This record gives sequence, structure tokens and C-alpha cells, in this order.
Amino acid sequence: MTKQWFAAVGLAFLLAGASPAGAGGPPVSEATQGCLECHTSVTPGIVAAWRASAHAKTTPAQARKKTALARRVSSKKIPPSLAGTVVGCAECHTQNPQAHADSFAHDAYTVHVVPSPRDCATCHAEEAAQYQHNLMSQAYGNLMANPLYRSLVAEVLGPRRLAGGALQRLRADAATRADACLSCHGTVIKVTGHIKRQTDMGEMSFPVLAGWPNQGVGRINPDGSKGSCASCHARHRFSIATARRPYTCGQCHKGPDVPAFKVWAASKHGNLFTSASQGFNLTAVPWQVGRDFTAPSCAACHVSLVTNSDGDVLAKRSHAMSDRIDTRIFGAPYAHPHPQSADTSRLKAPDGLPLAASLDGKPAARGLISRAEQAKRRQNMQAVCLGCHATAVVEGQFARLDHTVRTTNQVVALATQIMQEAWRSGRARGPAQGGSAFDEYIEKVWTQLWLFYANSTRLASAMMGADYGAFEGGRWQMTMSLEHLRHLARKAGRQKSRP
Amino acid sequence: MTKQWFAAVGLAFLLAGASPAGAGGPPVSEATQGCLECHTSVTPGIVAAWRASAHAKTTPAQARKKTALARRVSSKKIPPSLAGTVVGCAECHTQNPQAHADSFAHDAYTVHVVPSPRDCATCHAEEAAQYQHNLMSQAYGNLMANPLYRSLVAEVLGPRRLAGGALQRLRADAATRADACLSCHGTVIKVTGHIKRQTDMGEMSFPVLAGWPNQGVGRINPDGSKGSCASCHARHRFSIATARRPYTCGQCHKGPDVPAFKVWAASKHGNLFTSASQGFNLTAVPWQVGRDFTAPSCAACHVSLVTNSDGDVLAKRSHAMSDRIDTRIFGAPYAHPHPQSADTSRLKAPDGLPLAASLDGKPAARGLISRAEQAKRRQNMQAVCLGCHATAVVEGQFARLDHTVRTTNQVVALATQIMQEAWRSGRARGPAQGGSAFDEYIEKVWTQLWLFYANSTRLASAMMGADYGAFEGGRWQMTMSLEHLRHLARKAGRQKSRP
Amino acid sequence: MTKQWFAAVGLAFLLAGASPAGAGGPPVSEATQGCLECHTSVTPGIVAAWRASAHAKTTPAQARKKTALARRVSSKKIPPSLAGTVVGCAECHTQNPQAHADSFAHDAYTVHVVPSPRDCATCHAEEAAQYQHNLMSQAYGNLMANPLYRSLVAEVLGPRRLAGGALQRLRADAATRADACLSCHGTVIKVTGHIKRQTDMGEMSFPVLAGWPNQGVGRINPDGSKGSCASCHARHRFSIATARRPYTCGQCHKGPDVPAFKVWAASKHGNLFTSASQGFNLTAVPWQVGRDFTAPSCAACHVSLVTNSDGDVLAKRSHAMSDRIDTRIFGAPYAHPHPQSADTSRLKAPDGLPLAASLDGKPAARGLISRAEQAKRRQNMQAVCLGCHATAVVEGQFARLDHTVRTTNQVVALATQIMQEAWRSGRARGPAQGGSAFDEYIEKVWTQLWLFYANSTRLASAMMGADYGAFEGGRWQMTMSLEHLRHLARKAGRQKSRP
Repeated sequence: MTKQWFAAVGLAFLLAGASPAGAGGPPVSEATQGCLECHTSVTPGIVAAWRASAHAKTTPAQARKKTALARRVSSKKIPPSLAGTVVGCAECHTQNPQAHADSFAHDAYTVHVVPSPRDCATCHAEEAAQYQHNLMSQAYGNLMANPLYRSLVAEVLGPRRLAGGALQRLRADAATRADACLSCHGTVIKVTGHIKRQTDMGEMSFPVLAGWPNQGVGRINPDGSKGSCASCHARHRFSIATARRPYTCGQCHKGPDVPAFKVWAASKHGNLFTSASQGFNLTAVPWQVGRDFTAPSCAACHVSLVTNSDGDVLAKRSHAMSDRIDTRIFGAPYAHPHPQSADTSRLKAPDGLPLAASLDGKPAARGLISRAEQAKRRQNMQAVCLGCHATAVVEGQFARLDHTVRTTNQVVALATQIMQEAWRSGRARGPAQGGSAFDEYIEKVWTQLWLFYANSTRLASAMMGADYGAFEGGRWQMTMSLEHLRHLARKAGRQKSRP
Repeated sequence: MTKQWFAAVGLAFLLAGASPAGAGGPPVSEATQGCLECHTSVTPGIVAAWRASAHAKTTPAQARKKTALARRVSSKKIPPSLAGTVVGCAECHTQNPQAHADSFAHDAYTVHVVPSPRDCATCHAEEAAQYQHNLMSQAYGNLMANPLYRSLVAEVLGPRRLAGGALQRLRADAATRADACLSCHGTVIKVTGHIKRQTDMGEMSFPVLAGWPNQGVGRINPDGSKGSCASCHARHRFSIATARRPYTCGQCHKGPDVPAFKVWAASKHGNLFTSASQGFNLTAVPWQVGRDFTAPSCAACHVSLVTNSDGDVLAKRSHAMSDRIDTRIFGAPYAHPHPQSADTSRLKAPDGLPLAASLDGKPAARGLISRAEQAKRRQNMQAVCLGCHATAVVEGQFARLDHTVRTTNQVVALATQIMQEAWRSGRARGPAQGGSAFDEYIEKVWTQLWLFYANSTRLASAMMGADYGAFEGGRWQMTMSLEHLRHLARKAGRQKSRP
Repeated sequence: MTKQWFAAVGLAFLLAGASPAGAGGPPVSEATQGCLECHTSVTPGIVAAWRASAHAKTTPAQARKKTALARRVSSKKIPPSLAGTVVGCAECHTQNPQAHADSFAHDAYTVHVVPSPRDCATCHAEEAAQYQHNLMSQAYGNLMANPLYRSLVAEVLGPRRLAGGALQRLRADAATRADACLSCHGTVIKVTGHIKRQTDMGEMSFPVLAGWPNQGVGRINPDGSKGSCASCHARHRFSIATARRPYTCGQCHKGPDVPAFKVWAASKHGNLFTSASQGFNLTAVPWQVGRDFTAPSCAACHVSLVTNSDGDVLAKRSHAMSDRIDTRIFGAPYAHPHPQSADTSRLKAPDGLPLAASLDGKPAARGLISRAEQAKRRQNMQAVCLGCHATAVVEGQFARLDHTVRTTNQVVALATQIMQEAWRSGRARGPAQGGSAFDEYIEKVWTQLWLFYANSTRLASAMMGADYGAFEGGRWQMTMSLEHLRHLARKAGRQKSRP
């Protein structure tokens, strides 16, 4: 293909009418038309996805005119330069050029590779602001700025070598981190240079990005902002239906450390959603229980604006997942009242660890939400439950979860007591002995108990996941790990006591 | 919302015509209209599900008029008071009020919280009767009234404490049982008192139920009946399509102890059903091979009324899953001829255990179906297979399963021999030594061998589950567990023999 | 049913018009009409699947007339006897009768039970030829003719007995192999005799087949050919949509040894395909990015003929999966350049093992593709990626995969060093000591490290599978296995050193 050919296609496009929806549709900016001239051929999948999007079919000005509950553009003022055309390539990729370290000259424009929540905030200000109160937006720092978790990352990912018969851990590298933990937590995207490439349009220069590609929820963007709206609203269609489907959450919430998707899929909710969702209206805003859907996905309970058949709001839209969650039940040894700040690396437990509770279970004195706030958040969640369930069902369900939080915390405390005794007695080398908490076989057995099995058991309790609280990474594995831990600790003890 | 408001809505509803299907549809009883007046607003999800149901669109009298094969109301006599209106809220929730310990005065009616199979039997007598011959209807007692399995439950769920350096198990509580094993097996639902709640209609009194919510297949209901039709025919739509989809069975048959859903999903059957089921007719009664579906879900092979293109019945509808199953291949150490009674807690093996076979594999003298009955049930199943497969395929398939039953039983016998030797020699403490069979690490390794891996291998063989008989919880893990068991038993032996 | 009845039905069928698509549709051969007379009743599921197929709706002559890109019949010359009628029962089941050891006299015809790729090649010559260059076509021999892997099979499947306190392995039998490894790799199908059966048509004789049923990708057919087109294009609909859906690949690529399906399902690709595929056109040939699909299944990236919106071919159709794969990342201890030949049993590593690399990682001197060929294959794959992604995304993605290949190979080398030291020191008995590499607990821990966890980590890297490279059978389990291995080797060493 030649540049002449592209020009011809571009001309044909212009003559055919500039709206992606055909003649009579909303107008496309001249800049976006320029992008489409080539990219319709160069990256047809991207352009096709965008053409199917709401962005390609509506202008911000039109979107602002919807009634309050139906409105999806929350910013009160849209810059006039953007209000009258559809949201196309240029509208996102050329915004705030100075702020973007990844901006580069491309054809006649200064574009950037990585649109960020700050760009999206131009039209979706409320959502972007809410998201900054979401733990997920801080997922990079919550992992990497917390010394304990950073050590966990290192022990999982770091290469090893044999040194004097022992396994010695070497430093993990950025590529491996990006491929594993940070694929969900988010990488730091940095411009490391520029590269010239031969294209159909001749030689062009592009920035070289470290940490790219990545769609992690706590990504550190070249403009300094955190997160990626495309994590859930996959580019370039940015469909609300995609974010409402459970497969989106399942990308990161599926493994043994947080099997939320699998737990949901095994529940009655998951059964009914999977069976019936092809008949659901997954794009309706607001989302009306009974009319638009009859079984919830993750979004229905945790995030979406949900109304009842009278049009009453059961739950407000939120992009801070924790607005309806009173207790944090995974990601740490102990379940605990939700942190006040999305930045959990600032937590400090009585034993000095950067956690919401000491290893013996004693809670941090500061940084966790109050009982009153817990009650309020629980009420937010239960309002959704009550759209389909009687009060007795809802209360019974939450009483069971509260009980599970207590009993799993007890098992974690007992396991940790065994682990700490092994550290104290020298059977293993823990943080207090200058070692890592995660680099010996026995330590990984302990870690799995809380990171996998206690978490899974709590998630199963929260979402009626049946075997995920029993044999599928649940209480069976939790109890077996406890016995395994005891077995390993005792054996080490016996070996140690021999002369 | 106020009471006045509800009354206004109710009036509007009455004026608009009392049929949920609109004017001209079948009539709704006055009592159900009363329920709907408030609950359309209070629990819109429930009402929407019901409005979409066959219950809301047909009266029992109309349903009785269908031809024999198409009929879904099996009771020969429907009480006149119920025959002429659709099956609404009141029809189910006010039946047999004296029998229901959970009955309470609510508005002008005596309603109960938990409709039971006995209530459903008013219209669906045959299905309810069949279900009582289903092992699942006895799932509570089959677990909790069997001393060996009750001990397994206790060891999985019971909290622990450290006492003198050893792990001491404490009693498991009802809430934990309800959250784990009994979420599928069914809880005992009991009225423990009453509570007053402030509602939109003013203060109202409601029963407080222990063991609630629960949808376990062997639930003990407040009217003394067993099971829950809603386990599979999810309330309040009670759709036959839901029960025919595999996700329903997958709620409980997905974990490593019984990965039937996963095995099916990995099979050609699962592949084709998942790929093509949006084009299937999942509500047709009878269910015609080729026309209504071209790949089977669980229901097609195990339960549903299936006909061929000539209208011949290939398999009769049954709610006793075992009508087409000759050999029980999971849930016990050894595969064995199916029990005669749904109540398996009455089985007695030669070694006195409440099982179909002794720990060494010797079968119980009584209580298992005869070879002739096995042959008959196999024929029932194969009639479905032959709807799509040639005889050679079906015979080859079953020969392979029979072989797998024999070889997995041999591995279980060998593993159990190692375990019993460990018990006898004092390396572990088993039932004969006054201990539990399930509370030590080595015992859990043994348990996993039969409860997870032998079962999975058999299920994979029965349903062509490929890797579930090899690397995915199959023969690899079965063999590795055997070697692990040997490793642990030998090591313990060596340690013991030291002075 | 009687023979008379079948004759009547047959007559009715003939009178009604011989086309499966009704009067005016393409003609059905007389022979196939004869089959349908009975089999419409006897195996309605098969006939219904066929009636829905392209085979039943088109004649080869019509199919040949399509434009080059749309054509699905690649053979340049179709035998005149087959060209003019639809492809029915007889067309496949009576082809090449002399070549088929499974041919038998049935009604008036000589039919065979197992149509083979050689039969399909009559119309689909190119695809059949491509497939013979696919590793999968050699899957039987690649497992069973490789002494090391044959030993793995034996150790996974072979029964055991206790002999003098040790576990002694007995020979695995064909039925168990067919039920496990060979269910995917393919069995050897042999005629072992004939059997007479009573049918609705009177007594008939049928061949008895060993290794049947089976749909393994490397099946050895009764005509000596290898593979089964029905593995992916499930009989008897042979739908291209089925092969393009991921569930087909998932039948064999789902377990811990090769969790490709699960990795894909957890990726953004899997999320979007699962969410949106009901709106995709999965039967379009060629398959146009953006128009027909907006998220890839396995087939889109690895096999299918994919075009862009200009009609340019992004990737040619291939039935050799490796045409777009430069590096083999699973199925062996080390990732390595793809083998030249589909028959990998002929590989020879420097240490004499039938592998692409010695146990210490040193690559075989011959038999692997060159760097230039690797570059070409990578370009084939990237052409598909670039249909939806910018160059920087694609390059970043592949750089990460290359890095993961290196680092996982390093971990495997370290683990193997520990294992080999254990073998040398007598702590375990390996091949050099006349033992198996796979029959001791410690050896299985080593095997899992490379066969499960290193493979899973690489697949996660290749397809953006997030937790499959971290906690879900990824780096966590890989590292933990390394520490477990060290733990077991050290302990054995200590025990050995005691007098």
C-alpha cells in the first residue's frame, strides 16, 4: 500500500460523509478524520472497535443532555473544542500534550501513546475522581511501596542460584515483574528513548516505552496519573457492557489468591447470569433490577448505578469499589475493617509491619474505617441485595460472612503462631532474623494458608461459592496447610535437637 | 414510599388487569394480587423473575390439558382452589400452613418463608416422589448421620488450638457447617424465634430462621420435608432451561471432590454445548435430540425426558439421578454398585464402617443394587447415548469406564493398605486407635488420593474429560499421592525406629 | 420399529425430495439416501448434526466455484462421482474401501467406521497436507516412540503393588492409556474381530475396534493415516465455527501441563471474545478483523485465514499450528526453537536424550529451526497482532515473552541440577542409575516444576494470562517447587549421612 492509496481512501471517506455513523450522524473532527485515513487500513481492529463504541456515535454535548440518571458524561463543563464532535482518535490521543511524556510528533499532530484517567476526566470527571479513592488505583504502590509485599514479590519472581548448597535469590527484573504481579497491579510506564520505523507512510519516529504494554489497574502513566480506565472499559470500544460482565473482573480476580470470579461463577448468581445474560440489557443506564437484568455480575453489586422498578436508586454508581464493602477480606493475612485511604502502604500495625494488623492479629490503631462507616457501607451493599432478596436472607447471609471472617482469622493466627515459633527457634529464618518471610518452603506453606485458602474461604462465604469454602482451595486446604505446617515445624525441631 | 403509595400502585395494577401477562391473560388470585401490591416495589427482582416464569403465564388447569409427553404438571388432581389461577406468590407461600413451622401472620395472610418439595408436590407429585429416591434428597443425613463422614466434616471445619505443642481440634459450629459442606448438602432450617422489623408498611413481625438462607439439595425444611426444588429450578422463575443448563449442576459439582462440571466442560459434549447452546431450545418438553439440542448437558443424559425424531421416548424423565447410573463413582473411597436406598447412612461394610465397602475394598453384603438392576440402569443411560452414537462407540466407552473403575479401586486399596499399616504401627493414629481418620497431614494426603483424584479419574473416564484423568487432578496426582504417602509413612517409620 | 416401517419412511423421504435442504436444494446421492432411510431414526442426533452442516447444503462442485479466498474446498480435482451431490454419509464412509481395515459389508454397501484425514483429503487436500506438518498429527508417536516420554506415561498410568515394602510399578494397559494420555494424543485403532448384533433391521455384523472411540489429534487410523479432522471440526457438522471457538482447543489444552485455554480465558482477548462472540460471524471465510470478529480466539492467531478491511491477507490459513510459532514453549523441560519436523521423537540432545535440549539445557545440534526461520514465523504471527495493535505494543509483548523463556529456562536448569545431584548421590534413582526419572516423589516434584509451572508461566507470558504467570500455577508454584525440591534433597542427604 502506498501513501497515494491512503490519500485516495481518505478522500473517499471524506466524500462519503465524515460521520462514523454515516451521513447525518454526529460530526467527526478534522484531526480524527486524519487519523482514520490511515488507521482504518493500518489497524483495522482498533478502528472497528471504536466505530462500534458510544464514543463514535455521540458528541459530549449530546451526551450531556440526558437526564441525570441516564447521563454518562459527568463533567459539568466540556471544553467547547471537544463538545461538538464525536470522541475519536485525536480527542483522546492529543489531549494535554504537555503533561504527557509520551507525546510525539506524528503526521501533523502531537499525539501520545497512553491516554490516561486524567485525559478521560475531561468528560468523566466524577468517575475519575471516585477511582482515585479506589484501592485499585494505588495497586502499584500498595504492592511495591510496602516493604513486606515488595519482599513477597521478590521471593516469587527473583531468579535463584545455588551458592554453597543453598538457594540464593537474585534480584528480580522489571520485565518479570511486568509479566507477573504488575500485569494486574500496573507497571510504571516510562519513555526511554525514540525509535525510527519504516511504515507504509515512510520513516516515522516513535517513543520507546518501558513497562508497555500494560493495562494494570494501578498503572503509573507517562503523565503521572494512576490507573487505566481501559483495564475494565477495554479500548477502543469502552463499552459499559464489557465492564459489567464478570469476565473483565475475572482477568485479575481469578487465581488462588483472589478467586472471586470463580466463586461467583459457582454461585447461584453466577449460574443465573451465565445462563440468562444473553437476554439482559447490559448497556442500560441506569441499570434496572428485574427489567434489565435478573442476576448480578460483579458490577451490579459493587459498582453500578442500580434502580428498582419504581425508578428509585438502590445504589449509586461508584468507581471506588470499597463504597459498598465494609471489611477487606483478601490481600492480607487477616480480614479487617476497610482501610480509610486507598494507599494502604501507609498502614502501620502494632508490630511495625505495614499492614492493617500485626502478625498476631492485633489491629492497627489508625487508618481503618470506623464501625459507623462500616455500617454505612454494609447498608450500601445490602440495598442492592434487597432488590431481589427478603431481609431474612440478607441478614442470614451477612451473619455467616461475619462468622467466617472471625474463624478464618483465628486459623491464620494459629498458623502464624506456629510460623513465628519456628522463626524464634531457628527452624526457619524470618524477618526478625534478617531473613525474608517468604523464601523457605515452610514459609510458603504458611503464606498459602492465608494468601490462598483463608482468602478463598472468605470470598466463598461472601458470595455463596460453595466448594470454594470447602474442598476447592477452602477450609480443607486451610486445615491441611495447618497440619502440614505443624508437620514441617515439628520435624525441623526434631532434626535440630539431634546432636 | 408510604402505605398510601403502595395502595395506589396496587389499585393501578388492579385497574390495568390482574393477569401478569396483561389483559386477557390467565387470572391471578386475589391473594397473590395482594402480595404483588407491595412486593413489586419492595423486591422487584423476585417479582420480575416470577413474571417471566411459566408459573405466571399458565394455570394448573391449562397445564394439565397438555398431551402426556408435553405435560409438566404431573399431579392427577389439582385442588380446585388452585387450578384456575396462575401459580403466584400466595399459591406457594400459603400452602399447607399448619405443616410449616415457619408460617407467620403477614398482612392479611399466613405465609411461610420456605416453600418445600411438599408444597411443589401439589402440582408436581411425580417429580417430588422421584426426588425422594434421589441420593441428593438425603444429602444432609448421608453426610451428618454417617459417623465416618461426620468426622470428616469435623476435621475439615473444626477450629484448632495449640495444646502442649499439638494441634487440638475443637467442635465445628453450625454457621461454619452451613457455610461449607451444608451449603450443598443442605442445612436444617429451624425457627428460633421472631423479630419485629420496621418496614415501609410499618412494624411487622417475621420468623428468625437458623440455617437460612440455604438451597442445599438435602435441606431439612421447616415442614419436615427434605430437599429444595429451587436448588436446580432457581426461584422465582423456576425455569426448566436453568435446570437443563450445566451451570446449575456446576454449583455443587465443580470442586476437586466431584469435578463433574469441569470434566463435562472439557469434553466434546461440553465444547459443543457451550458453543451452540444459544441456538438450542432448552424449554421444549419433551426434549427432542437433533431438533432441540445437538449436544448434551448434564440433564440430557441424567434426568430429562428425551425423545428422538420419531417421537419415541429414549429416556423417561426422572428426578432420581441414579435411574440411569449403575455404579457410584464418587463420594466414597471405592466405586461400587449404586446403593438401593437414597439413604446411604444405613450401609454397613464388612469392617463395620458405614460405607458400601470396607477400607480394604470388600463390598457390603446388603444394600447395593443387583447386577440385573445395574444392567437395566446402564441400558437406560445408553438409550440416550445411542441417540447420537453408534453402538460400537457406546460399548467402547463403557468398557473403558468399567476398566477405570477397577484400576482406580486397585490404587485406592493399595493406598489404604499403606495408611492402615501406618495406623497399626503407630506412625499415625486412626479410628482403631481412637483417633480420627482425617486429622493428620498424612491422613489428608491419603484422603485426597481417593476423595479427589480417584473420583476425578473416574468422572473423566465416564464423561471423556481428557486431562481430568491425567494431569488435572487425575492419574498423575493419584500416583504422586501414592508416592507421597509412601514417602511420609517410611520417613515416620525411620524416625520412630530411632532410639 | 420394523424394516417395513423404515422402508415407508425412506419412501416418504424420497417422495418429499431428495435434498436435505428440501425440494430444489442440491442433490443427495442414492447411497446416502439409503443411509438416511434408517439412520434418521436410529441415530437422529448424527443425522440432525449433518443436516445442519455445510456438507449437507453444498456440492463440492458448487464449493469449488467460490473465489480463491472464500473457497473451502482446496483440492483442484474432485472425482466426478462425488462432485455433483452433497457430502453425505456414504461419501465419507465408503471412500477408499480397500485402504480401510475397518471396512465391512453393511446393507448394500461397504462402509468403514472411521473416516480419516486421507478420506477428507479428497476435497480438502491442502488442509490435510498442512496437518501432516503439524506436531499434533504425530502426537501418538511423539509420546509413545520417545523413550523418555513413554517412561513418563508408564509412571503416571501404571498400576502399582507393594513388594518388600516398596512400590513396584506394573505395566500400564492399553485401556488406561486410551482413557488418559491417548485421549488427546490419539490411540491406535485396530480391528480385532467382528461381532454380530441384533438390530431393528435384523442381525448384522460389525467390526470390533480396539482403541475406539477416540478423537485424539494424532490417532493412528485403520487406513494407516494419522490424526482426526473431527478432533477440531466435530463430527457430523464439521463446522468451521466450532473449530474457531476456543472450547475446541480447550478440550486438550486446559490442564496444568498446558493451560492455554485458561490463560486465554483470563486474558483481555478471552474476556472480550467471551463477552462479545455471540455477535461475531464465526463462519465467514475469509475471516475479516473488525467486521467478523473484534477479539481473537485460538484459531484467529494460530490457524485461520485472516484479512483486514481492505481485503489484504494478514495471515494465510494453515493447519500446521507452528507456521506462526517460532519457539516451542511447552511439552518439554526447556523452551526451544521449534522442531523442524513434526516427528519430535527423532530429536537427539547432546546427552543422548530424545529431546531438543539436554537435561542441563544444552540444545540439540540438529533438528531445530534456524534463527531466520524463527524470525519468519514470528513475522507471520505478528501480522495478526498488528491488525489490532500498534507496533510498540506488539514489540513490547514479544520482548517480554523472550525474557520469560530465558528466565524460566534458568529455573528449570537450576532445578534439574538439584535433581541430577540427588540422582548422582544416590538420594534418588534416575535413568543413569537404571531407574525411571518419574517414579519417586521427589522426581514428580521436579517434573511438576517444568511440566506444569514453567510451561504455565510461559503460556501466561505469551498470551497475557496474568495470574497464570504468578499465583495460578505460575512463578509462585515454580519457586515453591524449587524450594520443595531443595528441602527434599537436603533432607534425604541428611538421612543418608546418618550411620
